[in-house]
Amino acid sequence: MAKPDKNAPKRPNARLPKGMRDIGPAELRQTHAMLETIRGVYERYGFEPLETPAFEYTDALGKFLPDSDRPNEGVFSFQDEDEQWLSLRYDLTAPLARYVAENFQDMPKPFRRYATGSVYRNEKPGPGRFRQFTQFDADTVGAESVAADAEMCMLAADTLEALGIERGQYVIKVNNRKVLDGVMEGVGVGGEEFAATRLTVLRAIDKLDKFGPDGVRLLLGAGRKDESGDFTKGAGLNNDQIEYVMSVVEFQPGFNAEDIELVNSWQDRLRSNETMKTGFDELDQIHKLVLASGYGRNQIRIDPSVVRGLEYYTGPVFEAELLIPANDEKGNPVRFGSVGGGGRYDDLVARFTGQKVPATGFSIGVSRLQAALNLIGRAPAPALGPVVVTVMDKDQIPAYQKMVQRLREAGIRAELYLGNPKQFGRQLQYADKRGAPVAVIQGSTEREAGEIILKDLIEGAKAAAAIKDNKEWKETRPAQVSVPEAKLVEAVREILARHA
Amino acid sequence: MAKPDKNAPKRPNARLPKGMRDIGPAELRQTHAMLETIRGVYERYGFEPLETPAFEYTDALGKFLPDSDRPNEGVFSFQDEDEQWLSLRYDLTAPLARYVAENFQDMPKPFRRYATGSVYRNEKPGPGRFRQFTQFDADTVGAESVAADAEMCMLAADTLEALGIERGQYVIKVNNRKVLDGVMEGVGVGGEEFAATRLTVLRAIDKLDKFGPDGVRLLLGAGRKDESGDFTKGAGLNNDQIEYVMSVVEFQPGFNAEDIELVNSWQDRLRSNETMKTGFDELDQIHKLVLASGYGRNQIRIDPSVVRGLEYYTGPVFEAELLIPANDEKGNPVRFGSVGGGGRYDDLVARFTGQKVPATGFSIGVSRLQAALNLIGRAPAPALGPVVVTVMDKDQIPAYQKMVQRLREAGIRAELYLGNPKQFGRQLQYADKRGAPVAVIQGSTEREAGEIILKDLIEGAKAAAAIKDNKEWKETRPAQVSVPEAKLVEAVREILARHA
Repeated sequence: MAKPDKNAPKRPNARLPKGMRDIGPAELRQTHAMLETIRGVYERYGFEPLETPAFEYTDALGKFLPDSDRPNEGVFSFQDEDEQWLSLRYDLTAPLARYVAENFQDMPKPFRRYATGSVYRNEKPGPGRFRQFTQFDADTVGAESVAADAEMCMLAADTLEALGIERGQYVIKVNNRKVLDGVMEGVGVGGEEFAATRLTVLRAIDKLDKFGPDGVRLLLGAGRKDESGDFTKGAGLNNDQIEYVMSVVEFQPGFNAEDIELVNSWQDRLRSNETMKTGFDELDQIHKLVLASGYGRNQIRIDPSVVRGLEYYTGPVFEAELLIPANDEKGNPVRFGSVGGGGRYDDLVARFTGQKVPATGFSIGVSRLQAALNLIGRAPAPALGPVVVTVMDKDQIPAYQKMVQRLREAGIRAELYLGNPKQFGRQLQYADKRGAPVAVIQGSTEREAGEIILKDLIEGAKAAAAIKDNKEWKETRPAQVSVPEAKLVEAVREILARHA
Repeated sequence: MAKPDKNAPKRPNARLPKGMRDIGPAELRQTHAMLETIRGVYERYGFEPLETPAFEYTDALGKFLPDSDRPNEGVFSFQDEDEQWLSLRYDLTAPLARYVAENFQDMPKPFRRYATGSVYRNEKPGPGRFRQFTQFDADTVGAESVAADAEMCMLAADTLEALGIERGQYVIKVNNRKVLDGVMEGVGVGGEEFAATRLTVLRAIDKLDKFGPDGVRLLLGAGRKDESGDFTKGAGLNNDQIEYVMSVVEFQPGFNAEDIELVNSWQDRLRSNETMKTGFDELDQIHKLVLASGYGRNQIRIDPSVVRGLEYYTGPVFEAELLIPANDEKGNPVRFGSVGGGGRYDDLVARFTGQKVPATGFSIGVSRLQAALNLIGRAPAPALGPVVVTVMDKDQIPAYQKMVQRLREAGIRAELYLGNPKQFGRQLQYADKRGAPVAVIQGSTEREAGEIILKDLIEGAKAAAAIKDNKEWKETRPAQVSVPEAKLVEAVREILARHA
């Protein structure tokens, strides 16, 4: 190596920002296909596209803590020339609330919009956890009716099925915040002074899938010691309170006639209060709506254990879960958990206007769903690369370029080899690396005969690796045909059809 | 108005960040169609998609001034938890250079990628000038051959034509930085000490379209006074120098046989130096390549007056210009100027590695091109809204929802009216506001008869506005048919077909 030149300018280090990633062709093509499919379903549901900017004023995103001059954690923030704080959006719902508050007078009500794009989280990155990822949301604003919530569940089910996830491989779980609020009122932790206890109760319920009913009982009571000996303090409920909570969160009504009876009798059976009764009534209505529209319990299911984060939801909440068993790269079984979700949030617009605006929405975590589909082997086969027209004679480049254009005009992906044409073997190696199905070759002999050679690279892939120079190539010529130059397009089409 | 409550929490103001905008359905659908068209052409050219993050380390974008601790102007910047500066990308080329430097060993060479996405400029916004806008780029990295540059010109022409811009309504202008460098060497302002003069000369040449040859002569010489009396100081060249510069920048070779002779004789006629000679040779090769591939002077044209910004270009430069006359909203004639461009930049990757990597690219300003297409009346007709199933009887919502699902399953955009169903006129007004082609109506009379009413809203649009309540609606019933409920899908399809 050469000695470092002390006078050389300091060069920047080419590196990705922490928690970010570059996305290559195979994954991007799959993402693009997914987004088109989701878009199709959302459009069919009558939602209209809306795009808001990548960043908003921090206060508009609700990311200032009271009495704080700097933005809250979790967002990427900067100041504009007027020293106002801006933050990159961390979801697509907060910008929607800003949009609705700003344009309320002029929009059709209910207002139904879909949106997709990157969102940004200033959080600790980890394996599969990035700071930029894609969401695809649909929201209905200005509709109080639970029919709007029921529709979100159907939208979720239709979207997953459109993406190729079969019935039985997913479930849309539905709950209602009012049921959980009612449970907590019911055990006497409803008041302001019990905010911390409520949080502990919700966190415990949220662990039902992970720890099972007995684990949740411990977390609702004195606490739970895990296998490593770590102790998690519980909510401190007594046995009667615990059994009451469990009777609600373990309740699993279905969609046949008996189940409907069950739901209708639910309120009474569970010592309900007014809050819980409203929650049950709404779930019952959602239940009837999705049933009437032909959805079954293997698609949409009421599940009172769904907590759906500790966010801004005020009514029905939904969670889309994949049920397909899979293993990670190391062969360990993987629970995908939620690939999407949402719910009713009636207070987000009121933050700006003081006026309650009922709203409900569903959001797909596109990046997470895509990762899940790939783990279960649903990644599409990589697309074929372009036809590569090789360069045997440098002074014939205009003629080679013309061949490329003929192919492109016929709608065939094609390109001229644009590197140094000296070593012919490199050109074929390049074509292989690009996944090219065909290499087009014309040396002086072929040109004089008005011919071209088409090399089928998929058939000839193995043989090609051994070829080192023009001479050896001329002697071996694996998996190739000679055709009249005028037949270029037809002959290429024929080979492509063989590999389609 | 109610008295303001002094104890009420301070509410944030719902407002867009300065220089940003929300984009609604009509424009977004058009953007989406444009992006799909551009993607199709770029794919056909054999480029592969790549997505890099929305922000990069500031030093990797080259946005630190020497000896500065804060990022350069023009970008939005913030610090991560390690106090490293990050900036939102201001174009798609700088992130590509970072990607190439980081992944050089593993990629096929030449490396051909396309990318699209938002870029961000921290600049003064103005009418039609936003701080976030969309670009669509193709680049070939690792190809020294001007065939790569010629291909960019063809790509540009094919893309504009695919977007519906006819031949003669656009031109791809091609120049070479080496020609301009040679001109300046030729008039003796090539050295480091003339950097400021060169900038003034380039700025003068860049004004040829705006001020004409005589205006440029003034700017190359003593200076130019505009109509308002404002004086712009010139480059201070003498008459001989000025005429030499003008003889080059006004030279307009074409694509017929005589023109080729002209290009070939160019070097001698114009007292060229080595730099200019190389520039001419490369233009000549580009010229021959596009000619051989069937492109004419009405598509791609060599134009030595193209400066293409004061950026990082080192060889051929391209500019895509719309030639269609148009007026702005106030009726004033508008020159669109450039809707895309690019060129060869051989030094961008060397910033990181010290190793020169030849590269060339073309970038479409999607937002700008779209604005131009709309100004010339190329905006597509707004899409039809969804079919709206109205709610006559609240307790029948499950049945109405089922109708909606039947339509959706048949691939028809449809939705249930989710607002308060009390005032029926409002439901029809909503349907009109959404651009719905059909309203589906079923009251108790229709239900008992197993019928539904389909209201053709496009035909009945005018009449509908006058309808105030269920009673009046029942009496007038404009532009509507009654069909058996089982025929819902077929009958809606029939009406849609009439308006397709």
